[in-house]
Amino acid sequence: MKSGSIAPVPFRRVSVDDRFWSPRMETNRLVTIPLGYEKCRETGRLDAWKLDWKDGDPCRPHIFWDSDVAKWMEAAACSLYIHPDNELKKKLDGVITSMEKAQQPDGYLNSYFTTVEPENRWTNLRDRHELYCAGHLIEAAVTHFSATGDDRFLNIIVRYADCIDSVFGNGEGQKRGYPGHEELELALVKLFGVTGESRYLQLAAFFLNERGTRPHYYDLESASRGEDPAENYEYWQAHLPVREQKEAVGHAVRAMYLYSGMADVAARTGDNELAETCRLLWRNVTGKRMYITGGVGSTERGESFTADYDLPNETAYAETCAAIGLVFWAHRMLHLDDKPAAKYADVMERSLYNCVLSGVSLDGTRFFYTNPLEVRPGHALAQSGLENNYRYSRQEWFNCSCCPTNIMRILSSFGQYIYSSSNNSIYIHLYVGSTTEVMISGVRVKIRQETDYPWQETVTLYMEPAEPVEFSLFLRIPGWCENASVELNGKGIKQLQIINGYVEVSRLWRKEDTLNLNLPMPVRKIEAHPEVRGNCGKIAIMRGPIVYCLEEEDNTPDLNDIRLDSSTEFKAEYDETLLGGCTVITGTARIRNTDGWVDRLYRPSVTETMPVEIKAIPYCLWNNRRQGGMIVWISENLSEL
Amino acid sequence: MKSGSIAPVPFRRVSVDDRFWSPRMETNRLVTIPLGYEKCRETGRLDAWKLDWKDGDPCRPHIFWDSDVAKWMEAAACSLYIHPDNELKKKLDGVITSMEKAQQPDGYLNSYFTTVEPENRWTNLRDRHELYCAGHLIEAAVTHFSATGDDRFLNIIVRYADCIDSVFGNGEGQKRGYPGHEELELALVKLFGVTGESRYLQLAAFFLNERGTRPHYYDLESASRGEDPAENYEYWQAHLPVREQKEAVGHAVRAMYLYSGMADVAARTGDNELAETCRLLWRNVTGKRMYITGGVGSTERGESFTADYDLPNETAYAETCAAIGLVFWAHRMLHLDDKPAAKYADVMERSLYNCVLSGVSLDGTRFFYTNPLEVRPGHALAQSGLENNYRYSRQEWFNCSCCPTNIMRILSSFGQYIYSSSNNSIYIHLYVGSTTEVMISGVRVKIRQETDYPWQETVTLYMEPAEPVEFSLFLRIPGWCENASVELNGKGIKQLQIINGYVEVSRLWRKEDTLNLNLPMPVRKIEAHPEVRGNCGKIAIMRGPIVYCLEEEDNTPDLNDIRLDSSTEFKAEYDETLLGGCTVITGTARIRNTDGWVDRLYRPSVTETMPVEIKAIPYCLWNNRRQGGMIVWISENLSEL
Repeated sequence: MKSGSIAPVPFRRVSVDDRFWSPRMETNRLVTIPLGYEKCRETGRLDAWKLDWKDGDPCRPHIFWDSDVAKWMEAAACSLYIHPDNELKKKLDGVITSMEKAQQPDGYLNSYFTTVEPENRWTNLRDRHELYCAGHLIEAAVTHFSATGDDRFLNIIVRYADCIDSVFGNGEGQKRGYPGHEELELALVKLFGVTGESRYLQLAAFFLNERGTRPHYYDLESASRGEDPAENYEYWQAHLPVREQKEAVGHAVRAMYLYSGMADVAARTGDNELAETCRLLWRNVTGKRMYITGGVGSTERGESFTADYDLPNETAYAETCAAIGLVFWAHRMLHLDDKPAAKYADVMERSLYNCVLSGVSLDGTRFFYTNPLEVRPGHALAQSGLENNYRYSRQEWFNCSCCPTNIMRILSSFGQYIYSSSNNSIYIHLYVGSTTEVMISGVRVKIRQETDYPWQETVTLYMEPAEPVEFSLFLRIPGWCENASVELNGKGIKQLQIINGYVEVSRLWRKEDTLNLNLPMPVRKIEAHPEVRGNCGKIAIMRGPIVYCLEEEDNTPDLNDIRLDSSTEFKAEYDETLLGGCTVITGTARIRNTDGWVDRLYRPSVTETMPVEIKAIPYCLWNNRRQGGMIVWISENLSEL
Repeated sequence: MKSGSIAPVPFRRVSVDDRFWSPRMETNRLVTIPLGYEKCRETGRLDAWKLDWKDGDPCRPHIFWDSDVAKWMEAAACSLYIHPDNELKKKLDGVITSMEKAQQPDGYLNSYFTTVEPENRWTNLRDRHELYCAGHLIEAAVTHFSATGDDRFLNIIVRYADCIDSVFGNGEGQKRGYPGHEELELALVKLFGVTGESRYLQLAAFFLNERGTRPHYYDLESASRGEDPAENYEYWQAHLPVREQKEAVGHAVRAMYLYSGMADVAARTGDNELAETCRLLWRNVTGKRMYITGGVGSTERGESFTADYDLPNETAYAETCAAIGLVFWAHRMLHLDDKPAAKYADVMERSLYNCVLSGVSLDGTRFFYTNPLEVRPGHALAQSGLENNYRYSRQEWFNCSCCPTNIMRILSSFGQYIYSSSNNSIYIHLYVGSTTEVMISGVRVKIRQETDYPWQETVTLYMEPAEPVEFSLFLRIPGWCENASVELNGKGIKQLQIINGYVEVSRLWRKEDTLNLNLPMPVRKIEAHPEVRGNCGKIAIMRGPIVYCLEEEDNTPDLNDIRLDSSTEFKAEYDETLLGGCTVITGTARIRNTDGWVDRLYRPSVTETMPVEIKAIPYCLWNNRRQGGMIVWISENLSEL
């Protein structure tokens, strides 16, 4: 990274005290993370590290188990930093010890291959998640070291990284392969960050550069296994060299992790071509392939991206992990250029407040893997083979349980997305009640945010530099916001300087300087691009960054028969008793008269309607009461003018 | 069949001379059937009967090839009856000769198994189409005999049927299996009809009775092959004994053929339980699982039925063969009871005029396998893996080419669906320019229909009994029709007696008695049951039996943005220059203003609309010009009253 450039303020230096986020983070710490440990234990994921599984035993280790354990460790390490907890520390240390013992003489560290297929190490990079698991172990170790200062886990993992570095590369006898499930790339950049060892950055770049080149490594690899090659490599984003990729394709989580790694390497190496590819892919994803909730990956088939504007609501896959991956990527895009652009933070906010949070229940015990924008339990969805219950209500765990542990780690490290700083600037990307301290020109500057965002429109910032210091404070004006205003020490700033979506306030800052930011939050009716055909003639309700939905619980089972019209007016009101407290939107709409249907499928149309009161709740809070139908996109009468 | 009951007047006794149907039938005879022969030849389907294929040769015979050849033979035999054609006869006789030579000493007749897997005869009834092909061969031979009087093919096939009869049954050493792809059941009933040999009827009943019983034959069979059993047997309608089946499940063509066979056996044996099961399944299919076009089978996955009211438009499978199968079944339901009920003929008409005819291009050279109700070429549909071009435009042939030959045989035998008769009654089910002769109480009665149905509202019936004779003439009043009227010899019949949907006119009929039937055909806006969620707030346009659609060619690419409202008035006008002549429907609607979308996916909604002239053409004629988008279900503003 260029010196003097803008960097995120890490979660360790941000203390969150927020009416919206703190309860979720506390539930994550007190309920979800302990539950994650139990689930890993119950399912054999922890015992797998004993390496004593034998053919015929139950709980055969699985190729992706290590990644779940690693993500749990990462979450636990963050949580320990925020709130010391001896019991949790003991568990975490126990897992580290079991890994220490499981590490092979050459540094290799994988519970599945060491136990089940020791002879097949590195023989199927495409499908077997070996390097993916390595990536998560590295991320966990880096976070663990940063959070605890304890280098035991990091040392284990450095040995493993060195083992990988010796196996892969352009040198003689080295393999020119790369991860079938990307993740290691971004992890190696983190390892470089904490160790300063440039070999890791080079190895990340090597993996990116090899990807999709010809002769195709996966062809050669499958031939060695005596298998046919795959028909194409889009699923793995390995159909083309990464610099030639222009559209987001294939498995969405893989894509998000890849693009994150690309942005990381581009930022660290100044590789403009790679940076430009990231920008191109960003435009494709956020301009054509992203749900309004910030979910990505439209289809269950391959958990994948599909085509531009193909964003069906009911069959949406929108995996929780993919939304989390989009946050990772957005956060990196924000720091790819010299000046952050708010458009990246807009997407980060969109995913965090909608599709990421929808991934976990309010009580922290259940998870969504997929995040459809329309459901109707009992309606079979056999069309797409998605009739499974997991689309209708959150589940305790999954066989492929990537999402719960990803939720755990993003919530426990959430503070890192709020602020960035450089030597002479501070950026505020998200409005979250919180405190941070950064060094500006050698002066310690404390900032305290007070806000009831996203329910309230106002944010107050208390500036507390240790001594007067000059710098620019950049406040993000969300893309959804019109008529934002800022007051400095009680006086309105007349002409807001907005650069890349941030208001710049430059001055000599003094203790007790106070900024008041007002972000008007009228209820907005949003339409989708006309090519998103399932949304033609429909609107979604938003207020601030929050996407709303209609749940059957508050409305009618016939959610598809509700019709808004141009005169429909909405009222937003905070209800402290509902779903932990949230702003609810109500209004009067029409509903189609659906009487008189007996034993027939078609009849001359009756367009009669009746008035109906509708009530919308935040999408991220749906399915926290009884199971029932839900829609985000609501039909609307078109104006006849 | 009970004596004296109503029976269809076979195609041989009906001469069609109709402005709507005759051109399609002539094209079928002159273009499609010759093309079918060529395609069977080119692809190796005919040469397969030489039985000289050896491992390593190209054109490996396929398990379902015999069925394509058989269906072509059936079509050719009908065509020969209607219009002698030496060249066609030579081709047909040539195929029969090759089958004669290919027949095994025990009567066995299957080009695939005899050549490729002689050791595996009857070892995988579930998957290998062996009995299915037998069924089509039997149907073909029966039709060939009826149409030509030549019994050479029939004799071959009787030997094969006897071979099958010896292998399958309850007797010792016999197999208690049944067809994985139903078809043989209805074929055996036909063979019984033409030979009078009750063994064939009993064998059909045996297959029906064994189906889905426990221990499950397919379990036993797969165990003998050393394979795991299937997870469930819904795909094959073998999940339950047939009498316990209450919902249409699994592969739609299989289901239609099964239910047809069930209705056949029920009618022939007086099996009321089986008849009642047919009625129950009928209510399920036509009341909850049928497209407005008469298509069935909602999903590409397994070409199957899904759930009640799951009738998505864009991903509709609605295989042409399944619509044809629904015609077969409806025709049998019509004759299951003592008195035909028009509701069955309504469905027969719905499928014939819409989803069946859409299966073939106007010029007779291209075919639809699937019949979606909405398409937008270029829109990937990757969601369901249906991005294939065959959904957007008709194709010359398919690897699995069941639909083209099915089209050929239904068009060449179309006359059979128009009339039924008993000793003292004549039923007219379809209004088609045609002539027939039936015997009533020993008197030859000729009936001539003149009509421009479905474009015109009037039908004239010229009655020509050889001598005055008393009988009841039953005229179907279509379910879609209100205010039908009938004139007898120029005088209106005041109080129409409508029984089961048929007007009964009983009298002593004399030569030159003339009936004029008027079936008002206003343009109708049709709505779907509210549970058909994709159609909520949408209407389909119908006139008479014809379902209309909007094609991009006549309208705009943004078909989903068109919005009708309650004041939209339609005009119907015959256009002799368009698509071989058809009635076109026009009107003024509104279209959403979709300007200003640059590089973004979501924006505050703009409900502005502009007026737009729309033009609808019959669904069965779509895709006969340039490739483009098409919709059947059109959005409509709901009334605010």
